[in-house]
Amino acid sequence: MSSKEELSSWFAGPKAENAEWFERVLQRIVQDYYAWRRNYFPEDGVVLDSEARRSGEPFRDRFEDRLMELLGRLKADFPFQSPRYAAHMVAEQSLPSIAGYFATMLYNPNNVSREAAPVTVRLELEACRLIGDMVGFDESGWGHLTGGGTIANFEALWVARTVCYLADVVGDMRRALGLPEVVSGGWPTDRLTAFAGVFEDAQCKGIPFERVLQAYHDSSYCIVEHGLARVIGIEDREPVVLVPESHHYCFDKALDVLGLGRRALVPVAVDADFRMDVKDLDRQLDDIAQRSGRVVAVVAVVGSTEEGAIDPLDEMLDLRARRIAKGEPGFWLHVDGAYGGYLRTMTRPGRVGLGEPHTRTRLGEEVLTLPLDLPEHGACRALERMGEADSVVIDPHKLGYIPYPAGAICFRSNLVKPLLRQEAPYLEEQTADPDAEKRSQGIGMYIMEGSKPGAAAAAVWLSHVLIPLDGTGHGILIRQTIRNACEFHSLLVQYPKHMSTSVVAVPLCSPGSNIVCYAFKPAKSATSLSEINALNRRIYDRFTIGETSERRVYDQKFFVSRTVLSPRQYGLSAARRFLEELGVTEEAYEQQGVFLLRTVLMNPWYEQAKDRGAYFLSELTEELYRCAEEEASPSI
Amino acid sequence: MSSKEELSSWFAGPKAENAEWFERVLQRIVQDYYAWRRNYFPEDGVVLDSEARRSGEPFRDRFEDRLMELLGRLKADFPFQSPRYAAHMVAEQSLPSIAGYFATMLYNPNNVSREAAPVTVRLELEACRLIGDMVGFDESGWGHLTGGGTIANFEALWVARTVCYLADVVGDMRRALGLPEVVSGGWPTDRLTAFAGVFEDAQCKGIPFERVLQAYHDSSYCIVEHGLARVIGIEDREPVVLVPESHHYCFDKALDVLGLGRRALVPVAVDADFRMDVKDLDRQLDDIAQRSGRVVAVVAVVGSTEEGAIDPLDEMLDLRARRIAKGEPGFWLHVDGAYGGYLRTMTRPGRVGLGEPHTRTRLGEEVLTLPLDLPEHGACRALERMGEADSVVIDPHKLGYIPYPAGAICFRSNLVKPLLRQEAPYLEEQTADPDAEKRSQGIGMYIMEGSKPGAAAAAVWLSHVLIPLDGTGHGILIRQTIRNACEFHSLLVQYPKHMSTSVVAVPLCSPGSNIVCYAFKPAKSATSLSEINALNRRIYDRFTIGETSERRVYDQKFFVSRTVLSPRQYGLSAARRFLEELGVTEEAYEQQGVFLLRTVLMNPWYEQAKDRGAYFLSELTEELYRCAEEEASPSI
Repeated sequence: MSSKEELSSWFAGPKAENAEWFERVLQRIVQDYYAWRRNYFPEDGVVLDSEARRSGEPFRDRFEDRLMELLGRLKADFPFQSPRYAAHMVAEQSLPSIAGYFATMLYNPNNVSREAAPVTVRLELEACRLIGDMVGFDESGWGHLTGGGTIANFEALWVARTVCYLADVVGDMRRALGLPEVVSGGWPTDRLTAFAGVFEDAQCKGIPFERVLQAYHDSSYCIVEHGLARVIGIEDREPVVLVPESHHYCFDKALDVLGLGRRALVPVAVDADFRMDVKDLDRQLDDIAQRSGRVVAVVAVVGSTEEGAIDPLDEMLDLRARRIAKGEPGFWLHVDGAYGGYLRTMTRPGRVGLGEPHTRTRLGEEVLTLPLDLPEHGACRALERMGEADSVVIDPHKLGYIPYPAGAICFRSNLVKPLLRQEAPYLEEQTADPDAEKRSQGIGMYIMEGSKPGAAAAAVWLSHVLIPLDGTGHGILIRQTIRNACEFHSLLVQYPKHMSTSVVAVPLCSPGSNIVCYAFKPAKSATSLSEINALNRRIYDRFTIGETSERRVYDQKFFVSRTVLSPRQYGLSAARRFLEELGVTEEAYEQQGVFLLRTVLMNPWYEQAKDRGAYFLSELTEELYRCAEEEASPSI
Repeated sequence: MSSKEELSSWFAGPKAENAEWFERVLQRIVQDYYAWRRNYFPEDGVVLDSEARRSGEPFRDRFEDRLMELLGRLKADFPFQSPRYAAHMVAEQSLPSIAGYFATMLYNPNNVSREAAPVTVRLELEACRLIGDMVGFDESGWGHLTGGGTIANFEALWVARTVCYLADVVGDMRRALGLPEVVSGGWPTDRLTAFAGVFEDAQCKGIPFERVLQAYHDSSYCIVEHGLARVIGIEDREPVVLVPESHHYCFDKALDVLGLGRRALVPVAVDADFRMDVKDLDRQLDDIAQRSGRVVAVVAVVGSTEEGAIDPLDEMLDLRARRIAKGEPGFWLHVDGAYGGYLRTMTRPGRVGLGEPHTRTRLGEEVLTLPLDLPEHGACRALERMGEADSVVIDPHKLGYIPYPAGAICFRSNLVKPLLRQEAPYLEEQTADPDAEKRSQGIGMYIMEGSKPGAAAAAVWLSHVLIPLDGTGHGILIRQTIRNACEFHSLLVQYPKHMSTSVVAVPLCSPGSNIVCYAFKPAKSATSLSEINALNRRIYDRFTIGETSERRVYDQKFFVSRTVLSPRQYGLSAARRFLEELGVTEEAYEQQGVFLLRTVLMNPWYEQAKDRGAYFLSELTEELYRCAEEEASPSI
């Protein structure tokens, strides 16, 4: 079966082509569910008789009126399913995920515990096993779903913060318990093993569990118990988190929430393709070592929010290994793959390459660059080594094509569970402790959140068991999105070579995955950055529906989004090449940054539409140029 | 229209009595949605033609098979809709909330920003306005939805932690900017006003915004920027959070996450009805003042997770006022009403009282105690003053009868928004700052989470506009749940007076709302706590489906849940009366705690079932006694 044919049935289709069949599926789900209700102790009989049901008429009248109001209001939403929407990180949701969510929502299980959700907690763990496999984690990993990438990133840093001081905790505990000292390696997983080792060794020596626990809580480095201030106070070493300049703002928020403070965030320079500069990382780590800082974590971004760039995780891992070999401390390596984690499906067994470049455009036959087609390409090397990171965040509700809310956090080692546990770590299973009984049910004790929808678990599960997370399944779609980004990038650049136009689009960089950022500028005259920014703001206004806009969604031919290349976020090593191509000075950049248009090519339908003669990406390019020319003309 | 008639149409009904109509509603939603897809740029034509659709046959075959598997597995879930399920905090979901969620899920808006969800961000704010009104907050309040109560409580404490040091921040800023000192009151809202005042005064004096901002970030008390350790290091004052012994474990988790450490949690004693002992709170506050501690927040629990108890918020507010009048510092008063917040609907205009006690039982006509029927009852006084708290957490997915995920956090003052903002507080609206543009869209910058489902907002909105949050609407249902708890409590106690039985049920306390906890013991012989615990564990096993149990859901006549009265959590002021009634020693309690059966009476159908002759609560009582006798007999 060819990729396109397979893909055709995963989603409803831009014109709801698969809806007729899917409506029947949804209907069957509803009927099956309510039949289950009727069949549970049928001898109980009905509670609401015909008369009671009839008396609900006035309520149902109001209900239908308000529902019609809601359905009417919802139509002012964006048409995410249409290839005309090329703006934010949202497109179609897979039909299995909608069916899975909806079916389970009717039962409304709460995945905080097995006791409230015996079925869907298992589905959650099964689904996260599939995601962990994709990442490259083995059986000793552990993962669960979250409400989204922000909370998942919080949780990863929360764990990293505890692990950061764990070697000292282990030392304190061994001394307090009279156990021989053990030298643990610098790797985060070694620390986890060393912590588990204290409990094992104590048990062998017959030391009561309560005493081991006491030793844990008494350690001055037990941050869970004593808080940050006391732990930091002991050693006067500043804890820091290193992130690429391209990091999502949830990391600033996380450092605030976790009590580390935003100044603990150390940005690492990125290159002109918005990938972390590993040399700069090395330098920063040296700096931190020199001023006796503590590295809580180093974050690699796989698929940056604005640019879709993929950090060179492979080089970062190699750097960590080299530094440890030199006797430097190791560090927790966290991957924020909230957006790009699913890119890994492309490079997994079943890999079929990006295939023939898809080159037919209205502009003629062009050879497109498809950077991610090469196995030795940097992004592929990074993706293939995700399984060596300590934690990975991936959002099924982004490139997993699952409805909100669905984030996921996977840890390389399930030894993090005792650290997260909201009771004693390594609680003895056979203990008479009555609390143990209360807490032993399921995953609620090991996660940051509490109550959460089992429906999300079923959505992820059903979608991932049906569409394999490799090159024969989900990867087909991911590859198409990258090809589309390359094609759109190419169209933007080549348009002025074929057409007479007074403006040119300058892409921020080559697509790192499936996002393209760009700014228009007048082709000939030198123009100030202020004018360029104003021009692109005007263009943007024509590709969105503002709150106060007179235009309606139906009248809008295309949608793109926007972002800002901000000097507060990005240094010149990232911005310089682009500023040169844009023809503006570095001083101007430092003063105001660059307003950018941003196009996320997640929609699954561009290639198939093209087969039927609908060249959406060409049309979008032409429309952008047309509007840019119109907006540029008064100022020329 | 009488209450019962109204209620009949809110839910599907235990035997899906309203399903036929509701299936049509759901079908209409689906058809309406897909028709919208077809009508968006109809001239684009279909992308998936008949041939492409046909080629999806193999995928659809697998899809249907897997879906059947899922539907089969889901049937092992608990029948939350049945009056036979009286275990955890979950029952029916209102039909409007299911329709609202499902309809919106198809559009899949992301409420992180207006740009991704122009319609549903507005619905979220409208829904939270309704919840804020119910709480008693006015127009100057601010609230939003969260994934659940845990994250909502985190957010409240996160804000409280910042506000705790805000008076010092304001002092630092005024000195740095050369502004005259202003004495601010001890109330948290005064601190927020004082903070806003710095920005206003600076603007009047023509001080550039950037300098004010710099002064904010430079203040050594700016915890957002410098982190906890530095701020605490300056003054060596230990920050603490006071919670009743009955607090949910998410508060321990929150103190860990926020970097305060679990030792910062100061438990306040509760009385024999599991309500905070305000005298003990007063003493603890004195203690903390004496050792120069900093009170980050005092938490009142409205509807404790295990007992459904309501803290005397009114007395706590009075205590705060008295202490401030005496020159003591004020404190942030946070209400965790995740479970019980909706009890407020009972006491709002439209209040019709609990009505005639519903007394017909199989045991004959009994007069039931209905404590919450009295306006002067402690719980009512507490509920009526929720609007004076600084923040209130309420979970629509608990007593709001909305599907997961739906939590809510409401603040009394929207002046918290600048503190939460992930950019400069009081960012000038007309600034040329390009970042401002990027960040100004919607609520994502003011909340702890990131991406979140707009569908949840629509679910809460549609349900709350249709079922008013007062005594004429939602309160009718809430009152019934309390009456049911009182009735069940009464049945448990009175059964041995009418029937010959070798066991008696000892309730933990009178129902504080709609939860009943109890333990069985042999009626005559003195029995050790170990034996009593073992007996109740055996009884529990007969009212649930274990993971390894041979019993199937269909064979299970009734479900109850369990909890543990643990000496680690509860001191003797809470436990003593119950221990006496149970006939066990305090020493035994200190050693092992008491295993309890727990019944949450959230199901809406008990009264109407009784009208048709189905006495579920009587049956449950009889079944409990029957099983208890059987389990007790071998040990006698």
